[in-house]
Amino acid sequence: MTDNPIRVAVLGPRGRMGAQTVRAVEGAPDMDLVATVGSGDDLAAVVDAKADVVVDFTRPDVVMDNLRFAVDNGLHAVVGTTGFTEERLAEVRGWLAGKPGIGVLIAPNFALGAVLAMRFAQQAAKFYASAEVIELHHNRKADAPSGTAAHTAGLISQARAAAGLAPGSDATTSELDGARGATVGDVRVHSVRLPGLVAHEEILFGAEGETLTIRHDSMDRVSFMPGVLLGIRQVPNRPGLTVGLEHVLDL
Amino acid sequence: MTDNPIRVAVLGPRGRMGAQTVRAVEGAPDMDLVATVGSGDDLAAVVDAKADVVVDFTRPDVVMDNLRFAVDNGLHAVVGTTGFTEERLAEVRGWLAGKPGIGVLIAPNFALGAVLAMRFAQQAAKFYASAEVIELHHNRKADAPSGTAAHTAGLISQARAAAGLAPGSDATTSELDGARGATVGDVRVHSVRLPGLVAHEEILFGAEGETLTIRHDSMDRVSFMPGVLLGIRQVPNRPGLTVGLEHVLDL
Amino acid sequence: MTDNPIRVAVLGPRGRMGAQTVRAVEGAPDMDLVATVGSGDDLAAVVDAKADVVVDFTRPDVVMDNLRFAVDNGLHAVVGTTGFTEERLAEVRGWLAGKPGIGVLIAPNFALGAVLAMRFAQQAAKFYASAEVIELHHNRKADAPSGTAAHTAGLISQARAAAGLAPGSDATTSELDGARGATVGDVRVHSVRLPGLVAHEEILFGAEGETLTIRHDSMDRVSFMPGVLLGIRQVPNRPGLTVGLEHVLDL
Amino acid sequence: MTDNPIRVAVLGPRGRMGAQTVRAVEGAPDMDLVATVGSGDDLAAVVDAKADVVVDFTRPDVVMDNLRFAVDNGLHAVVGTTGFTEERLAEVRGWLAGKPGIGVLIAPNFALGAVLAMRFAQQAAKFYASAEVIELHHNRKADAPSGTAAHTAGLISQARAAAGLAPGSDATTSELDGARGATVGDVRVHSVRLPGLVAHEEILFGAEGETLTIRHDSMDRVSFMPGVLLGIRQVPNRPGLTVGLEHVLDL
Repeated sequence: MTDNPIRVAVLGPRGRMGAQTVRAVEGAPDMDLVATVGSGDDLAAVVDAKADVVVDFTRPDVVMDNLRFAVDNGLHAVVGTTGFTEERLAEVRGWLAGKPGIGVLIAPNFALGAVLAMRFAQQAAKFYASAEVIELHHNRKADAPSGTAAHTAGLISQARAAAGLAPGSDATTSELDGARGATVGDVRVHSVRLPGLVAHEEILFGAEGETLTIRHDSMDRVSFMPGVLLGIRQVPNRPGLTVGLEHVLDL
Repeated sequence: MTDNPIRVAVLGPRGRMGAQTVRAVEGAPDMDLVATVGSGDDLAAVVDAKADVVVDFTRPDVVMDNLRFAVDNGLHAVVGTTGFTEERLAEVRGWLAGKPGIGVLIAPNFALGAVLAMRFAQQAAKFYASAEVIELHHNRKADAPSGTAAHTAGLISQARAAAGLAPGSDATTSELDGARGATVGDVRVHSVRLPGLVAHEEILFGAEGETLTIRHDSMDRVSFMPGVLLGIRQVPNRPGLTVGLEHVLDL
Repeated sequence: MTDNPIRVAVLGPRGRMGAQTVRAVEGAPDMDLVATVGSGDDLAAVVDAKADVVVDFTRPDVVMDNLRFAVDNGLHAVVGTTGFTEERLAEVRGWLAGKPGIGVLIAPNFALGAVLAMRFAQQAAKFYASAEVIELHHNRKADAPSGTAAHTAGLISQARAAAGLAPGSDATTSELDGARGATVGDVRVHSVRLPGLVAHEEILFGAEGETLTIRHDSMDRVSFMPGVLLGIRQVPNRPGLTVGLEHVLDL
Repeated sequence: MTDNPIRVAVLGPRGRMGAQTVRAVEGAPDMDLVATVGSGDDLAAVVDAKADVVVDFTRPDVVMDNLRFAVDNGLHAVVGTTGFTEERLAEVRGWLAGKPGIGVLIAPNFALGAVLAMRFAQQAAKFYASAEVIELHHNRKADAPSGTAAHTAGLISQARAAAGLAPGSDATTSELDGARGATVGDVRVHSVRLPGLVAHEEILFGAEGETLTIRHDSMDRVSFMPGVLLGIRQVPNRPGLTVGLEHVLDL
């Protein structure tokens, strides 16, 4: 334990991510878990416990109330709950305008590897004539492509456009419907679904005579915890709203 | 050189595959290259040269005449020229019915690795709940998926049906058009096109807790030559029509 | 449930593999779990319960007594316990000589994918100039290479020798100690150890212009259960001793 | 062609890399090939031709004279010739001290993908408990590991040390000699050699529950040309000595 551990409260401690977070905070030498607030519990507990940072892994229908409460009470927040529209983000920014010292980090993905893969993909994009994304998941997944793959393809597309690259050339004249995948910007995205797979993303770049591949394999939810802990450590130093873990990585 | 080298004639010696075959036969210690017949040359040369086997890498519009001539003259044939419909195959079988000692091998793919990959895929199919195929080629390819990938997916589908397997379950309820690939039987096929790629096929099988992947990477046309030479060696011992190199592999 | 379910007893039901087997047998429509015998329990329970097949996931120091008991009492056995030397196998064969109808299957690996990968590797070996094996495991593994990878490399080496292949050529003249891996027969084996990995094996074959790769990824112990169930179903029809699941796969 | 094309001279135009460079410069719309100087030709030709930049793909025994001549005559230089020791680099720096406007870029590797892979590996290193490198090359390669893989492993090691990471834990207690690869810093490096392979590097990072893989596949020498052209464009704006293409990439 360090001299001034960060005092952390976890909202949603019985969900899968919340429970992992409770264990991760308990195991972190520079943090103290000072409160957990489940559904039905009183949020005031986090103030009573003198928390510095609240971590929210709850549900879209309660996260806005939680965040409002945290900001009003001068607490930083790290949020992994989904469902943040542009409208919601604007609302959070409005609350923070009146609280200049408070930081809120909202991240759709806390897997460092996924965030690094996206960042590297953005950096590599302008050096290659063409790019495609393959994501592979277990066969219980409802959406195709995955949110991460779609987001990655969008970032690559933007980086290509910013560098003035023409769309990658594709000589396909005869296609069995769907063979060439879905299109996000000028990037094709392919979704594989098989039992035995967990969560995998492969980003391929091609130029004459070479290819570059960036692959992330996520086997277990525990892999999100280093990103959550990093967020908890960084958010007090980043006033205002930060969207995406990539902004707190020191690359 | 062996005591009784196989006497080989190459039809289409100036095309890309034909030229490779000329070099491969010249380099094979158990074969003699006794004739080459290009467009405009007289086919009779292969009889004059006492060829045992003719290899045909010509064009769909001349291959039937070449084959007819070979069979009529008691020569075995190895054929890599494309365009063989069921109708054409029936016609060849008809010619061979009257020539019981003569063998003809027609193969769409002489890459041993591609043929092995297909065979292994057929063998593995019944042990897995689900299978998908990814093929990756250079961006000058006109068709998607590749013929090899479509054929492989078809073979897997047949093997699954023969084993009484239900179609692989897929929980996708929200799909960006094309993300889940093309469908061949009950197998999804994905086609990636990038400069820098050559010709690659990946077959993925999944069951609870494990996946099995078979991948073939073809970098150079020279990789077809061991299959062509194997065909030349085997065809004299296989009277009648054989379609597919897999039937002459001794697995 | 079917008309005549196979009556199964599990020895070692509280170990990790035994517990999985209990669940798998309970879930199999063509099997009845009729007894479990832990350490300290009386083996006679399996006879009282009229078991057809006993499954042994115990320990090397008790497995021989268990097997002796099973054979003496006319029960078939499926054994995943380790530690079978040639001497022990000979002893089991001796017992079975007097019991012509009884089958015993001893398998070091029940993962169908691992067994298929080995079989395909054996089949492919003679068609390629050279082969190497990469195995990748979590960083808590004590032995390098894994038993499966060493066994696979040995099988490839034997298949290459049987086909009269010379050792794969290797032009390395300057090597940092260990870079080219361990040597099993004439096959190099490389062991990667990283947190985040589970259990993975990759077998690479190379010839001019092409490579063939067979990869098995095992994420979870549940992947062994289809092999265990297959063994239970097949062992009554295979009198005598069978070593290795590959012999009961109908490829 | 642009208004003020860069005037380029190629030294070593008949070697494999030099010949590629001649073609690449001829094909670049913003460059003019104004001179080529083979062995036996007079270097003065590059001054007569008013070259802005000389590209040197010659040999270690002549490159220092070439570079001295270029710097003395106020020409920028892009150098892919090997054999630069710290002593040689110091000598070049000495020459450049007296020529403040002149830039020299010496790069061991002009493949953008290899350079990007190294850079990403450096960036990712501090976020992972452990890293290993696998490099795969054709079986005519003399050194193992490849220079690029050894260099990459060294960079990762340095980045890990700078971040205060302990060496990756490895529980291996029983090892067949060489299985765990060569050691560069605290990174294991594995070298695979097979016919059919070209030049491939795979960098694997592992943390609890996830892995990140960066892979570069180089199929053809043509893949070095975008890096050479980038060097030619950037070197006039980078006075002094620059070692490594990564420093002229705008990431």
